[in-house]
Amino acid sequence: MRIAVCAPSTPITREDAARVHALAASEFPDVELLVHEQCFAEEGHFAGSDAQRTAALVECANDPAIDAIWFARGGYGACRVAEDALAAMDHAAQDKVFLGYSDAGYLLGGLYRARIGRPVHGPMLADIRREGGEEAIRRALGWLTGAGQAHVEPSLAREKHPVVAFNLMTLAMLAGTPLMPGLAGHVVMVEEVSEYLYAVDRLFFHLTAHLGGIAGLRLGRVSAVPENDRPFGASADEIARHWCQRHAIAYLGEADIGHDAANTIVPFGQASAR
Amino acid sequence: MRIAVCAPSTPITREDAARVHALAASEFPDVELLVHEQCFAEEGHFAGSDAQRTAALVECANDPAIDAIWFARGGYGACRVAEDALAAMDHAAQDKVFLGYSDAGYLLGGLYRARIGRPVHGPMLADIRREGGEEAIRRALGWLTGAGQAHVEPSLAREKHPVVAFNLMTLAMLAGTPLMPGLAGHVVMVEEVSEYLYAVDRLFFHLTAHLGGIAGLRLGRVSAVPENDRPFGASADEIARHWCQRHAIAYLGEADIGHDAANTIVPFGQASAR
Repeated sequence: MRIAVCAPSTPITREDAARVHALAASEFPDVELLVHEQCFAEEGHFAGSDAQRTAALVECANDPAIDAIWFARGGYGACRVAEDALAAMDHAAQDKVFLGYSDAGYLLGGLYRARIGRPVHGPMLADIRREGGEEAIRRALGWLTGAGQAHVEPSLAREKHPVVAFNLMTLAMLAGTPLMPGLAGHVVMVEEVSEYLYAVDRLFFHLTAHLGGIAGLRLGRVSAVPENDRPFGASADEIARHWCQRHAIAYLGEADIGHDAANTIVPFGQASAR
Repeated sequence: MRIAVCAPSTPITREDAARVHALAASEFPDVELLVHEQCFAEEGHFAGSDAQRTAALVECANDPAIDAIWFARGGYGACRVAEDALAAMDHAAQDKVFLGYSDAGYLLGGLYRARIGRPVHGPMLADIRREGGEEAIRRALGWLTGAGQAHVEPSLAREKHPVVAFNLMTLAMLAGTPLMPGLAGHVVMVEEVSEYLYAVDRLFFHLTAHLGGIAGLRLGRVSAVPENDRPFGASADEIARHWCQRHAIAYLGEADIGHDAANTIVPFGQASAR
């Protein structure tokens, strides 16, 4: 199992990479983890220029010796490279898993729309930094090496509809762009971190107007909400219910995803693909 | 000239209202300023419940004795009431000016789409709190009472295309919703405040994908940008140029709008309406 790590958004440190290398070496002996040098590049906000990030992603995706692409870290930046990278991917990208979340969702969405590979929402290498981060890394590598159902989001066991999972901001920004997949008939899971509740409400106003025809919405964890100068007056759950009702979208309750070490695996699409 | 003030987003204080009343009384004797009691209501984040805010806006819009609706303040909340309020407006709303910016942009956009009244981007009552805020209030009341060209955005003097102006976040969130006006052939002006440059870049990624067919984009002030843990690597102007080029949108340079006391007046639409 050869897993290539690249960073379409922001850089990781060599220490992050070394810790995950060590964990993989001791617990996943069948895994060969290939961390692309681009993961350590820095240019302004990003892990190298748009051209560098695009090139590294395309190189990994088009390498027939690689089984899976594991995104290193979120932050921001994948939306700047996704269209060009997708356009340059060839048949070798078709068999691969692409695993990540947060800002990597721009790529997951674009891949799913373009029907390239198997986009999967789940932990990234940089999650090693989180409290309990080793568990997140084990979950990702465990799922990639075939542990399967033990690590997937619990509702998937009984879910008959195709599913996707995204960061709320990321999916809201994808809406209406050339990267946005058609989600009719899908169960859509969203999670958010570090946004004021008024901003969560604003994102739901926007996003639910774009989700006509979905099978339903599940809300992951909305964490690290900053303190505002006054209480918003509704919880994240109430906000989701309000906007789902407004747009006649079935609200299906919680999803076990979030910006934390407990974030589970959500393979996009039909149960048969999971 | 009877100007009704209502607050579709967040509340103002009685002191704000008193200061603007005093300025109007001494400098604009022809203005009768009617500040709706709803402007002082509080419910969680908002100036009263969605129902209260909707009712006050509709009451003012449908009152044939009122010449203009002046939005009290932004913040967040107009998107929650805009659709219902627009649906309840009658022919009396048709002759009125609707003046505001920031979060009031959800209403300006919806009004423009629905061809109700004359949406105008410009200072709000709560701008009295800003340094130099009296000038912003004078500009708004001056324009409302017929001073006209002295207070409008400078590029409008030579602009042959219809124009609109919005807060960047607000227009990005409007995109694809039932409130989004068709902007083909328009010059679109956007400004932003208190957003990280990576968030500005993200909003441009999203928004420019929705602005196909516009005549061009002008960038207002991008102010109070928070310090990030690292420099973004491009200025707001460079960000706007990047995404305009990506989507073949003409970038027309600066606009004299922003979240500040110098914010000028931008009447939506053709020059003949200005």
